[in-house]
Amino acid sequence: MFLLHLSDVDEASWAQAFSEALAPYPVVRRGDSFDPADVRYIFVWKPEANAFDGLNNLKAVLSLGAGVDALLKHPNLPDAPIVRFVDEDLSQRMSDYVVAHVTMHHRQFTRFMADQKARRWDQYYPPAASETTVGIMGMGVLGQDAARRLKPLGFNLRSWSRSPKAQDGVEGFAGQAEFDDFLSGTDILVNLLPLTPETTGILNRSTFSKLRRDRLAGGPVIINAARGGHQKEADIAAALRDGTLGAASLDVFETEPLPQDSPLWDIENCYITPHIAAISNEQSGVRYFAKVLTEHEAGKALPNVVDRTRGY
Amino acid sequence: MFLLHLSDVDEASWAQAFSEALAPYPVVRRGDSFDPADVRYIFVWKPEANAFDGLNNLKAVLSLGAGVDALLKHPNLPDAPIVRFVDEDLSQRMSDYVVAHVTMHHRQFTRFMADQKARRWDQYYPPAASETTVGIMGMGVLGQDAARRLKPLGFNLRSWSRSPKAQDGVEGFAGQAEFDDFLSGTDILVNLLPLTPETTGILNRSTFSKLRRDRLAGGPVIINAARGGHQKEADIAAALRDGTLGAASLDVFETEPLPQDSPLWDIENCYITPHIAAISNEQSGVRYFAKVLTEHEAGKALPNVVDRTRGY
Ligand SMILES: NC(=O)c1ccc[n+]([C@@H]2O[C@H](COP(=O)([O-])OP(=O)(O)OC[C@H]3O[C@@H](n4cnc5c(N)ncnc54)[C@H](OP(=O)(O)O)[C@@H]3O)[C@@H](O)[C@H]2O)c1
Ligand SMILES: NC(=O)c1ccc[n+]([C@@H]2O[C@H](COP(=O)([O-])OP(=O)(O)OC[C@H]3O[C@@H](n4cnc5c(N)ncnc54)[C@H](OP(=O)(O)O)[C@@H]3O)[C@@H](O)[C@H]2O)c1
Repeated sequence: MFLLHLSDVDEASWAQAFSEALAPYPVVRRGDSFDPADVRYIFVWKPEANAFDGLNNLKAVLSLGAGVDALLKHPNLPDAPIVRFVDEDLSQRMSDYVVAHVTMHHRQFTRFMADQKARRWDQYYPPAASETTVGIMGMGVLGQDAARRLKPLGFNLRSWSRSPKAQDGVEGFAGQAEFDDFLSGTDILVNLLPLTPETTGILNRSTFSKLRRDRLAGGPVIINAARGGHQKEADIAAALRDGTLGAASLDVFETEPLPQDSPLWDIENCYITPHIAAISNEQSGVRYFAKVLTEHEAGKALPNVVDRTRGY
Repeated sequence: MFLLHLSDVDEASWAQAFSEALAPYPVVRRGDSFDPADVRYIFVWKPEANAFDGLNNLKAVLSLGAGVDALLKHPNLPDAPIVRFVDEDLSQRMSDYVVAHVTMHHRQFTRFMADQKARRWDQYYPPAASETTVGIMGMGVLGQDAARRLKPLGFNLRSWSRSPKAQDGVEGFAGQAEFDDFLSGTDILVNLLPLTPETTGILNRSTFSKLRRDRLAGGPVIINAARGGHQKEADIAAALRDGTLGAASLDVFETEPLPQDSPLWDIENCYITPHIAAISNEQSGVRYFAKVLTEHEAGKALPNVVDRTRGY
């Protein structure tokens, strides 16, 4: 039996699509009457405290989100393996966001918009992409896709991950020991890390102050499309105001929705989007998890299982 | 003898670099004393009315600009072949501009900036790049480079040129007969045409009204990085205000610098840059034209010669 437990999204619509994709395999929702002991797979997004009660025969927890930081903090999370969502469509959308914000900052939108407002015709020529370095923190599914798309644009690329990574045309840095080196050659810092105890608050003043300062006219730039927990918003606001950072693009926030009284809303060189960088598309989500279930029932190993010790 | 005649740029610096690159071939500037009949090559940018007086033994006119529309209107232009600047660095910079503006509009910056200003958390999800079509007018050196860089980002691409063009992954349209078809499937229109009598004013209300309207939430978008003569600014201002266009990025203008009283400065969905999309870099310019001269002196044909009948 396949149980859906989704908050904040259209659970009925997903349930309908799964019923069709998995038939005759039984699909149920929270309100339906069924024996919890019959549930083999639970598909979750923002599960409530009692979500897993009585599910004593689970084969897997399937996570609609690519990031599992919140799920791992669930007080009653069962022992079953957690399969996270990995999907080309999701990667495409995230890279759309990343490329748009990298190129916008590289081309100094903040400066040109200020000039436009002042009706100022000032012929400043941005450096070429080939003179600019983008540093990607987190070289997993999304970081690798972003690098693959930024490369043909001509940017110099470097990455930072836990274990060493080799991707064509990307200079790899790994671990705490190489973090400062990684930052010192980075003009535009893109965060695509998972949120774990080690990465919490990594976007802070100390990190910003180590970025390369002499390339982009406005100063170095940060782009956070991972999790709000990665960033110290007080540090970002101060750094944007005192020039430590030239600009910031933030899709995620310490508290979401971003509170009405956050100072970030009003900062000219801060570009806010409401956690929409990449969404899990229903069609590809159903295709992916239906395949996971069917193949696992046929004896195959589960893909993209979360390592609970690492936290991602 | 090689004569420089450059306005609005640092002629002395270019002259110094050419002297070094061409030595012992003689290099002179306007103020120097020399016999005009000895000049074989003249290197020009915005030449004055008397620029070509007495140059009766010219082998070629070398144009610092990639666009030769203004040069072709020079009242005393000699018959010698005109060689225009074609350069990878210039193409890279133009593609930097084009990609930044295409991706910014695809990701609905205008909408998200308005939301930010209003402190509104509205989770609108832009379509994927793969659901969006970029139409490139002008599939020459710059149009082809832009297409090559947009392709790996996942956009659907189409192009419009005078003669049919086949580029991998780009749907080609050619000539007046296919113009409307080309427009009807285009969400983001990029202009990289040369300015000729046929292309003057092509960015007008009739063109805008034929673009595809149902894909990008704000409406279709135009990006003009070619020449101001391509656009009817009164039409653009009206179209941006009445929703015929969702946004416009303009790097060039009917009159440059853009006059202080232009309505474009104040339109929220109009993104103005001061003709800085791509600049001819001194180092690669000197390398290119030194090669042109040396190879031509050794008997090779001139490259990238302008066709005066076509006007580009
Ligand atoms: N804003 C949105 O709309 C949105 C949508 C989807 C996902 N996300 C977020 O995007 C992020 C990335 O997702 P993903 O699927 O690409 O993750 P992933 O495949 O798990 O990749 C994680 C990467 O981060 C590295 N890493 C983890 N801990 C590290 C540490 N302590 N130090 C250095 N590197 C470390 C990993 O290194 P190793 O390679 O050595 O393991 C790996 O390269 C997640 O935070 C997710 O929540 C956001
Ligand atoms: N903003 C800046 O900083 C900047 C910098 C450099 C250049 N530019 C401008 O960029 C533009 C493009 O330069 P380029 O070097 O790529 O030019 P190009 O190599 O000469 O290419 C011109 C393209 O336009 C097409 N075309 C010409 N007339 C046409 C017509 N009547 N109908 C349909 N298509 C037509 C040509 O078709 P065929 O292929 O059939 O010949 C060709 O594909 C020029 O306007 C130049 O002035 C601007």
